[in-house]
Amino acid sequence: MVELPGRMMSAEIAEQPQVLRRILEAGAPRIRETARAVAARSPRFVLLAARGTSDNAALYAKYLLEIQLGLPCGLTSMSTTTAYGARPDLRDVLVVTVSQSGGSPDLVASTRAARQAGAITLAVTNNADSPLAAVSEYHIDILAGPEKALPATKTYTASLLALYLFADGLRGGDGSAAAVLPALADGILARRAEVRQLAGRYRFADRMVITSRGYGYPTAKEAALKLMETSYIPALSYSGADLLHGPLAMVDNISPVIAVVTAGRGGEALQPVLDRLRGRGADLVVIGPAAQVEAASAGFVLSLEDVPEELQPVLEILPLQLLAYEVTIARGQDPDAPRALAKVTETH
Amino acid sequence: MVELPGRMMSAEIAEQPQVLRRILEAGAPRIRETARAVAARSPRFVLLAARGTSDNAALYAKYLLEIQLGLPCGLTSMSTTTAYGARPDLRDVLVVTVSQSGGSPDLVASTRAARQAGAITLAVTNNADSPLAAVSEYHIDILAGPEKALPATKTYTASLLALYLFADGLRGGDGSAAAVLPALADGILARRAEVRQLAGRYRFADRMVITSRGYGYPTAKEAALKLMETSYIPALSYSGADLLHGPLAMVDNISPVIAVVTAGRGGEALQPVLDRLRGRGADLVVIGPAAQVEAASAGFVLSLEDVPEELQPVLEILPLQLLAYEVTIARGQDPDAPRALAKVTETH
Repeated sequence: MVELPGRMMSAEIAEQPQVLRRILEAGAPRIRETARAVAARSPRFVLLAARGTSDNAALYAKYLLEIQLGLPCGLTSMSTTTAYGARPDLRDVLVVTVSQSGGSPDLVASTRAARQAGAITLAVTNNADSPLAAVSEYHIDILAGPEKALPATKTYTASLLALYLFADGLRGGDGSAAAVLPALADGILARRAEVRQLAGRYRFADRMVITSRGYGYPTAKEAALKLMETSYIPALSYSGADLLHGPLAMVDNISPVIAVVTAGRGGEALQPVLDRLRGRGADLVVIGPAAQVEAASAGFVLSLEDVPEELQPVLEILPLQLLAYEVTIARGQDPDAPRALAKVTETH
Repeated sequence: MVELPGRMMSAEIAEQPQVLRRILEAGAPRIRETARAVAARSPRFVLLAARGTSDNAALYAKYLLEIQLGLPCGLTSMSTTTAYGARPDLRDVLVVTVSQSGGSPDLVASTRAARQAGAITLAVTNNADSPLAAVSEYHIDILAGPEKALPATKTYTASLLALYLFADGLRGGDGSAAAVLPALADGILARRAEVRQLAGRYRFADRMVITSRGYGYPTAKEAALKLMETSYIPALSYSGADLLHGPLAMVDNISPVIAVVTAGRGGEALQPVLDRLRGRGADLVVIGPAAQVEAASAGFVLSLEDVPEELQPVLEILPLQLLAYEVTIARGQDPDAPRALAKVTETH
């Protein structure tokens, strides 16, 4: 039996609407309960710890918690604990560790150290029986089911939705705004032919720049990671503002740029960056509203004006996951079998 | 009169030992005073805000403050304030904003908002008369003198040293361990011919990966930024642990990798990553101890075993600044005139 290249990644991308439904129906009540218990402890700061795809989900949570909850957040530099033995004072600090496998030894060690240092610890994983869930005081199960492809897709969107429901629960919300996501995800994933056409553009690309701002920035980072680990194209991601502080020099008329333009303030803040990129003659592909796609070289239209901006990241990554898959197929490679990667990465 | 390409960048790289001496002699007492005043306010959490090169200096400060002071830190996502109007509760929070010009409107706006939200605010700039210094409660002048080249070099090392003295001052230290830096910097910068030879290796490179761990990670990020904004080579930087979580798939036997190996725990924690890279047949260039350089494809030996690991970043970036300069010259471009960049980047 010959297996199609990328069969597993393709199947897991397609599963996402169903996973989102499962979280909303089966997972939401417990997530809200967990949020209520954490809120009762009145954390004043949040530290987020994760690696790889989960780190991009953690960055999404950082925007949510800072903007919606007014909680100052930081992303953990794990080596401060694991290599240097730092013992910070973590009273009143909520430490959220995101990991699909819940198995990476450095995440387990840093979470254990955080708990000993007085932190409120929460693990967000796809494995309730994992060592990470065991060392954490609270645990959220993202209910994505086993993920077999090396490039993580469904565990990313599942983490985003779980983190949204948690953040909304912290402020007493019921997360009902997320109910629209599964059907919208179905609609986006049905437009694979459009993505396949876009992918042709990158078959011979030797670099890519992906940019966004605000809630779209984690999407830009995750898209770059997905493209790199499947197609091996060096894909650099920058917040629009950081792009102007240096890396813009790298962009010329043969440098492809993808911009993730949210419908909302992040997209508005990106406008000057889009203008600069057009002025430099960059090949600009927009994932976003129709008017922005029309003003670009090409794109994928997302009509999410009625979806709260903070929920758009769950959907915006979908065409970019498909793009990573299709570009990799177009280059004659197998998205299921990236060179050199193992599913559970053991970093210490 | 014909001006040599890269004349300004070259001159400013060469000025660094003198700038370090100036900070140690003329700047240190005031920095210690500022640190004492801030320590008396007992901050419990630190947020660092910066962009571009200064963001890498801020990341260095994050390692220092977490490891040496046990203060949990976060890097600010500016758009949460400037685009989304987030108003976090910043009592007991020290907000450190790093900017050579002190002029970027978004940094000024986010610092002003932080101060209104109850934060202790500290600006670290090369311009005491800047709007950023004016809106901040405390100010540290990095005393680097006017920086004319677009790629920042001397303001980077000056920021690192100023931040080191500040962090050391917070715990009552006198910063005397830093006294060795200027002479060591002189010695490294005298070895330009070695760097020129290494540069030949990257003349035709179409990508680079730069990795490190712990205190060396900000150096990897700054080296990647410098190489990109001068030579336009897409240079990706990863902490060694993150490299194993995905981007390693991108590295093969024609992908050049530069590893910054500190003499200390960061270098030790990087060892498994170096082994993996060698196993994949990567072209591995090491900036670090002699034994590590010998085990690699090539490198630049730094004998810093007697320098505390937390001070090594001030020196480790020097050969990499020279490398960015020499690679750019070798590719027939002008390091002083990166396409599309302005010295004061106005992001909002």
